[in-house]
Amino acid sequence: MAGMTHLDPDRLLPADPGTRAIARRLYAATAQLPIISPHGHVPALWLADDVPFADPTSLLISPDHYVFRLLHAQGVPLADLGVGGAVLDEQGSRRAWRLFCENWAAFRGTSSKFWLESVLADVFGVTGRPSASSYDQIAAALATPAFRPRALAERFRISVLATTDDPVDSLEHHQALRADPTFATRVAPTLRPDRYLEASGPDFPDLVKALGVAADVDTSTYAGYLAALEDRRRFFKANGGVSTDHSHVDVVTLTLEPSEAARIYGAALTGEATVAEATAFRRHMLMEMARMAAEDGLVMTLHPGVHRNHHTPTFDRFGPDTGHDIPVAVEFTRGLQPLLDRFGTVPGFQLVLFTLDETAFSREIAPLAGFYPSVYAGAPWWFLDAPEAVRRYRGAVTETAGFYRTSGFIDDTRAFMSIPARHDMSRRLDAAYLAQLVAEARLDEDDALETAVDLVTTIPGKAFKL
Amino acid sequence: MAGMTHLDPDRLLPADPGTRAIARRLYAATAQLPIISPHGHVPALWLADDVPFADPTSLLISPDHYVFRLLHAQGVPLADLGVGGAVLDEQGSRRAWRLFCENWAAFRGTSSKFWLESVLADVFGVTGRPSASSYDQIAAALATPAFRPRALAERFRISVLATTDDPVDSLEHHQALRADPTFATRVAPTLRPDRYLEASGPDFPDLVKALGVAADVDTSTYAGYLAALEDRRRFFKANGGVSTDHSHVDVVTLTLEPSEAARIYGAALTGEATVAEATAFRRHMLMEMARMAAEDGLVMTLHPGVHRNHHTPTFDRFGPDTGHDIPVAVEFTRGLQPLLDRFGTVPGFQLVLFTLDETAFSREIAPLAGFYPSVYAGAPWWFLDAPEAVRRYRGAVTETAGFYRTSGFIDDTRAFMSIPARHDMSRRLDAAYLAQLVAEARLDEDDALETAVDLVTTIPGKAFKL
Amino acid sequence: MAGMTHLDPDRLLPADPGTRAIARRLYAATAQLPIISPHGHVPALWLADDVPFADPTSLLISPDHYVFRLLHAQGVPLADLGVGGAVLDEQGSRRAWRLFCENWAAFRGTSSKFWLESVLADVFGVTGRPSASSYDQIAAALATPAFRPRALAERFRISVLATTDDPVDSLEHHQALRADPTFATRVAPTLRPDRYLEASGPDFPDLVKALGVAADVDTSTYAGYLAALEDRRRFFKANGGVSTDHSHVDVVTLTLEPSEAARIYGAALTGEATVAEATAFRRHMLMEMARMAAEDGLVMTLHPGVHRNHHTPTFDRFGPDTGHDIPVAVEFTRGLQPLLDRFGTVPGFQLVLFTLDETAFSREIAPLAGFYPSVYAGAPWWFLDAPEAVRRYRGAVTETAGFYRTSGFIDDTRAFMSIPARHDMSRRLDAAYLAQLVAEARLDEDDALETAVDLVTTIPGKAFKL
Repeated sequence: MAGMTHLDPDRLLPADPGTRAIARRLYAATAQLPIISPHGHVPALWLADDVPFADPTSLLISPDHYVFRLLHAQGVPLADLGVGGAVLDEQGSRRAWRLFCENWAAFRGTSSKFWLESVLADVFGVTGRPSASSYDQIAAALATPAFRPRALAERFRISVLATTDDPVDSLEHHQALRADPTFATRVAPTLRPDRYLEASGPDFPDLVKALGVAADVDTSTYAGYLAALEDRRRFFKANGGVSTDHSHVDVVTLTLEPSEAARIYGAALTGEATVAEATAFRRHMLMEMARMAAEDGLVMTLHPGVHRNHHTPTFDRFGPDTGHDIPVAVEFTRGLQPLLDRFGTVPGFQLVLFTLDETAFSREIAPLAGFYPSVYAGAPWWFLDAPEAVRRYRGAVTETAGFYRTSGFIDDTRAFMSIPARHDMSRRLDAAYLAQLVAEARLDEDDALETAVDLVTTIPGKAFKL
Repeated sequence: MAGMTHLDPDRLLPADPGTRAIARRLYAATAQLPIISPHGHVPALWLADDVPFADPTSLLISPDHYVFRLLHAQGVPLADLGVGGAVLDEQGSRRAWRLFCENWAAFRGTSSKFWLESVLADVFGVTGRPSASSYDQIAAALATPAFRPRALAERFRISVLATTDDPVDSLEHHQALRADPTFATRVAPTLRPDRYLEASGPDFPDLVKALGVAADVDTSTYAGYLAALEDRRRFFKANGGVSTDHSHVDVVTLTLEPSEAARIYGAALTGEATVAEATAFRRHMLMEMARMAAEDGLVMTLHPGVHRNHHTPTFDRFGPDTGHDIPVAVEFTRGLQPLLDRFGTVPGFQLVLFTLDETAFSREIAPLAGFYPSVYAGAPWWFLDAPEAVRRYRGAVTETAGFYRTSGFIDDTRAFMSIPARHDMSRRLDAAYLAQLVAEARLDEDDALETAVDLVTTIPGKAFKL
Repeated sequence: MAGMTHLDPDRLLPADPGTRAIARRLYAATAQLPIISPHGHVPALWLADDVPFADPTSLLISPDHYVFRLLHAQGVPLADLGVGGAVLDEQGSRRAWRLFCENWAAFRGTSSKFWLESVLADVFGVTGRPSASSYDQIAAALATPAFRPRALAERFRISVLATTDDPVDSLEHHQALRADPTFATRVAPTLRPDRYLEASGPDFPDLVKALGVAADVDTSTYAGYLAALEDRRRFFKANGGVSTDHSHVDVVTLTLEPSEAARIYGAALTGEATVAEATAFRRHMLMEMARMAAEDGLVMTLHPGVHRNHHTPTFDRFGPDTGHDIPVAVEFTRGLQPLLDRFGTVPGFQLVLFTLDETAFSREIAPLAGFYPSVYAGAPWWFLDAPEAVRRYRGAVTETAGFYRTSGFIDDTRAFMSIPARHDMSRRLDAAYLAQLVAEARLDEDDALETAVDLVTTIPGKAFKL
């Protein structure tokens, strides 16, 4: 055998023949259902302007930190892979692809391998190991109309696609897409205000000034800053937004006296807030975000616990999101207690908890989601978005919170081509998990079938108010 | 298929046919053995007075926080479920049952579903999904003598049942049961002194006064307080007690100078102890409890790491144990070092460690239980008392500590009806785990069979000195 | 059946017949390959002088803390097992063996059982449960030349064996072995400077004085101390060393000003360094070790997170390494950030991360190894060096870091006889893991086969620069 020639229809299904037969039936019920992607990073511009993809490297390697970080670990310089905005010429692009092919063994056992194989085979019809020849095949396909974003969105059956956007974004591309009757995918913006809540950054004064401009509110006062945030939330909601996203290093929440919050805000505007004050302010503002969410109904999602830009020299040269964001432990129970004490049972308030610290799944997230009507256990994310980690997630969460307190699958990706592969992976794994419950007589097969379908329809629909 | 019609005899056994065949043989050897329940929360009064159960809702929903918390998470108000002492009338009880039935899908994949199905089918002969009709069937059964606690205890083959009791309890019901030659179950009280060791509570002065009254000792001094605790331990032991239970937020232990302990105790009596002093005092008192255990031989069990009453509004309205106790991380290695340094190899001293923080199983608990003759790795507890969590426990503990340094299964429940289902679940899971060892040629089947039997006989017998 | 009569050729392979068939083929490709053991504790003296083993107890029980700690937990006094240097006479040795046999059930499900059975059967041809008769058989074998260390090293096909050595060691045995053309195993010393970096110990002044003598450098100054360490590293490298090993309670790294480091060093020499100063100094010195490694190319391995000598009375009587070293949680992401910021991408620098805190595998170690070309995810170690823990390791690490960012198997043992059994266990488990990937169509079988071979050849070869 010289490598994969076509994709096995049973991939990721359980090896035991009896369990596999059940899993096949469950998977068959969801395999062709539309994709709901309620959290991700595809730019709305791509779809609004139907921007063609340039070449295999800039499509599949340069922007995918899952892929280039492993190549970097193998010793390939990031500069050779077009990371961080450098544009490779044709020769550079082919060279990067060759480096990728030469290091293909490094991806054995990773989720990236599963996704890349699926993309190559299912999207481009390219089988066998990645090679110079597959580069040519992909490049040829990309030059055709069938491989432009809109055609692919339709081919991929994406019914909902959420983007992630800066609070000052004009959302013009979202507006254009909503106004276009020929485009069926619902593209929802997501407000991500992290930078506007971290008052210790040197750019904080400029950021909140821009926020004020966008909202047409004077943000030189704390009251104006809050009003501007409320305004932008309204604007996002009016333009189809259903959620806000928050990714800070922890999820500690607290309530400052308004006068104290105003004082720190003022100090931050002149660069005089201490790190401790800025931390307290951010924790206070996470509470304020929950307060606003309880009022305007936008779903609040948390993605905490990442030490961003771990390697300074790489950050200095290539910028953020270049493969060296490393997780840290996160505490939810005590950190979120003040927030949930206030808003945990408020009708309409919804909070989806993601983690890269698996220990929190059974210990904290599932117990919280198993009591609070507002809390949903977010799907495995980032490093945990892979077959065995997904199984561990189901194993850790389900027995305490069931299936109906979870978020449904989230692809969280900028890698547009891989969206179907990621959702397909999730559907196969859920079929496998449910099949095991059936095989062990813990669940009737008809209930399992209904659950499999719910997991890709009503469950994300409820968690994200779609 | 319209839902379960009868229980599958192979439920929870491995799907692989070869391994399942082994597991069947192992399970067959333990399925009918008497139940030893050395830690739980069934009130002795129920058995002493053979109190009839009122109705399906107050039996299976209102007192079971596993069940009502998930309904609450689905949006059902706790008040509608009779939680927190509210008594529902017939109409309310039927309505609560209907809400439960309507949300039955929320329990898919949870241990509660397994237990409830077992209770309905095995205890009441009710098959199919829960429904208005099953309410009637259960209600009819509850009106008959066969469904009163004593008859059920005999039917369930419960040979030992430990209760959990306040130190000032008169143990009159235990005495009555011990004096009754017609009742075969050994009902052992367990002293749980948590509130009497937490010196920061506003009710602490009243509590220790009551303790003094119960022990007929003046507890206005620290020496008297210690004497009263020692007296109550003796009283419990004299009335069949074999263990004491301790559930504080951490397991840090330390030794204060007696004069310092006395000083803090005095301050606590006048409400002047600081939180830090009260914490130090509690950690000191955990050490004192170990000292007493080394002297009187009562087994010491620890259930740490729960943030109790996470949602204040719910606590204010419905009281404690209403579904929002959420686990936190716990550290054992350093926390228990002072205690184990002093008592870890003292003959007769025994310490059973439970955790809701699974990370401690392989990292701390199994290594401790694999060295100290006094330490036992407690069975999975509460949120972890479910099929996959139990597998993870065996996987995490066995390779370091074997089977013979564990506690045997603990149901830890007030849900009397579910006791057989819980022990049955455990026996099936242990059969499955042992069968996998046999299938992988890590254990002979005859050794596996002996171990399966030991796990429900000699192992809890040794850990709890029965 | 009366216990194992011979070893099952399929032990540890998956129970599912289809997956097992794949695993058999993969295992067959590695079963007979030479053993690379790049980290362990066998004394070089044994091989240099070909020291005969004395008797079954002093060979298999007294020095093996995995074995005697579980016997101790069962209530057997360590003194009865010859632990801590006590020499048992013939009668005592036989008595210890009998205690071991009587408690054989305590080892069910442990990795020690797997290794001991393999040693008895594969090395000594002893089948059935351990017994007085097996004592005789082993004792008889040990008296023959075929059971002396050199003959066994050849029989075991050990191609590389790393020892662990004090920085002041003369390495005379390593030199003798390297000079001996009749001995094929490459025996590499490993410099382990822990004690020389912990400035709070009362023996620190004497230790660094001895270090100075060994290096022929005046270590009364900080500069001399650094020079002495650099000299000993060079000496180890010149004598075949490829790595240094570091086992402190945490892996926090920082850089002190040289003047501050010198000041603390001076204080430590007069016993005046505070604990906080000594901790800062050790963290600084871990950074210095990385600096030296970046310069001299010795691979740096970290084994952090153990609370050593947990039970003081046992330590006082029997010394260190007597079964009561208990793991604690460890943080890598923040702790190693300063070190990796400086050296993480320096060509030639290599860092292998081990942990007893499994939570770090998916959360921290795999993400670090998946980006930094210098970082390798170390194999499961100590308490985690067992079938299910190894599976959890592969499950936690592979999806993020693949196979090629891992260290390959490390036996880390002083139990010479068990080296083949340990590596065999690892090969079986890797075959099983890879077979599952093949069975689930995540990996082609030819790639799996290549990976299985790489895992015992090129992968440890690269991680340890062999």
